[in-house]
Amino acid sequence: MLALNLHNDQLDLRFDFPTPVPVPGEALLRVRLAGICGTDMALIQGYKGGYSGVLGHEYVAEVVQAPGREEWVGRRVVGEINTSCGQCDHCRRGLVTHCQRRRVLGILNWDGAFAEYMLSPTTLLHAVPDHVPDEVAVFTEPVAAAYAALRDIPPDAGERIVVFGDGRLGLVIALAFVAEGYDPVLVGRHVPKLEIASRQGVRTTMELPAGAEFDVAVDATGRVEALSVILDYLRPRGTLILKTTTAQPGVLDLSRIVVNELRVIGSRCGPFPRALAALSTGRLDPRPLISATYSLSNALQAFAHAMQPGALKVLLRP
Amino acid sequence: MLALNLHNDQLDLRFDFPTPVPVPGEALLRVRLAGICGTDMALIQGYKGGYSGVLGHEYVAEVVQAPGREEWVGRRVVGEINTSCGQCDHCRRGLVTHCQRRRVLGILNWDGAFAEYMLSPTTLLHAVPDHVPDEVAVFTEPVAAAYAALRDIPPDAGERIVVFGDGRLGLVIALAFVAEGYDPVLVGRHVPKLEIASRQGVRTTMELPAGAEFDVAVDATGRVEALSVILDYLRPRGTLILKTTTAQPGVLDLSRIVVNELRVIGSRCGPFPRALAALSTGRLDPRPLISATYSLSNALQAFAHAMQPGALKVLLRP
Repeated sequence: MLALNLHNDQLDLRFDFPTPVPVPGEALLRVRLAGICGTDMALIQGYKGGYSGVLGHEYVAEVVQAPGREEWVGRRVVGEINTSCGQCDHCRRGLVTHCQRRRVLGILNWDGAFAEYMLSPTTLLHAVPDHVPDEVAVFTEPVAAAYAALRDIPPDAGERIVVFGDGRLGLVIALAFVAEGYDPVLVGRHVPKLEIASRQGVRTTMELPAGAEFDVAVDATGRVEALSVILDYLRPRGTLILKTTTAQPGVLDLSRIVVNELRVIGSRCGPFPRALAALSTGRLDPRPLISATYSLSNALQAFAHAMQPGALKVLLRP
Repeated sequence: MLALNLHNDQLDLRFDFPTPVPVPGEALLRVRLAGICGTDMALIQGYKGGYSGVLGHEYVAEVVQAPGREEWVGRRVVGEINTSCGQCDHCRRGLVTHCQRRRVLGILNWDGAFAEYMLSPTTLLHAVPDHVPDEVAVFTEPVAAAYAALRDIPPDAGERIVVFGDGRLGLVIALAFVAEGYDPVLVGRHVPKLEIASRQGVRTTMELPAGAEFDVAVDATGRVEALSVILDYLRPRGTLILKTTTAQPGVLDLSRIVVNELRVIGSRCGPFPRALAALSTGRLDPRPLISATYSLSNALQAFAHAMQPGALKVLLRP
């Protein structure tokens, strides 16, 4: 089958990749549509010390086989990405997305979605309602990551929320906040991207007024240098939700965190059911974020496009 | 009067310092005993960009005058250190210890406790029960800072708690955790200091076993380099309570915070009533931390002592 494989930091479009075979507990999926994420581009650049395997962890697919769980066959699904063993200390504490033996679809020891077929544990699958088009469902994973930021807002926080970064992640987070009734300000640098957000009710700006102060700030800039600026806009005991994962270590003025008693919360994967609910009711429409859709056989061009400044979501169709 | 004054980063013991005069709302206090804190030593070294004034913010004193609030006169008191205006945006939001116009006793625009007499707003005073000796009461401020760490433990955390640093602050925090029924491990480098903690029921170690994992870690090391090591011992979604304030910026691997979904919580001043309750019931006995008591006229020697490796709390008696 066709698959986009990463090996020794080298991307290869392989036509002879073996079609995987599911064991009981796994489903064989035919990928319908997949999205290129910032993490994919970071993996190509060596993040995580060199992933080898098929890339891709945002997808919508159809179940082809599911040994022992035949009720899944024929269903259209999206899927969570962290496998879990159920046995380790983290799993027993309920931290299943942090399983100590976890594999992560398209990221760590498990072939991903930029292929004609892929495998997933059936426990990670979520059925997609019929009326939700593929172009919407494919955003479930990044929208769930945005909902993780919502989960991390302390219940005693006010509602002055600012999102920094108008890339894919920042936009989806701002849209998720609005979908859930918050009134965030999105700070970005790109008029066309900010307009995508403002058309769905997000307040946007390219520069905050001096002295502006927020209860919650979300960092989706992808740039560690941005953090010092972001801290300036947090009230004492305010919360910074960190979404940026970069390979480079960041320099942070820790005494400001102590003196202002700030909370910094790292936030990664999120709840698929809430994301699917927002997408299926139309409260959140991610389609304006689609920059282009390529066939999988043009995956290298798709990656070149996704890496261009200004590009938002680039999709791959096997 | 006698006062230890800091000016242009220069410590001067002055014999002719003017005795302050209270206005309504303020109390004139005769200092009975005061403690030298790490912040005092940092201020001497230029932290906060150069404080000018009388140092000292840990004290027990007797109220001499309190215009309009005569009921305070003659009482033995300890005092909080952050003044507040009641008018600014932070005060109106209840963040009074973060008042935008705040002055901080002995730290920012308000003469402190290393003097025969000092002023305090009466709103910051707490009466000390008669049976609590000065040597115990003088620890109320640092014990309150330790209780701030307790306040910041998320209610959904387990109880695997580790405190890093066996200096004054780390010891007091470990003792406070034990006083409140937790079972922390204190990690330090100094056998005599660790023994002070273990004699009050704290588990101590000089090295954690590889793979040890905690729900909550408290950084009281005073060294920004320690943070990377500390992160190794936190479980996913664990909490790091930051108490270290240093002038130097710290380098932190932010992607670990995101991937492990850690919470980093800056923690500063804490609740005086809880601290006084722990001290007055004897649940927490800070007296083993006293390294020496000097008369205020020997304050420069006292500071030299406090700065020696191995020194714990050095007290000044005017």
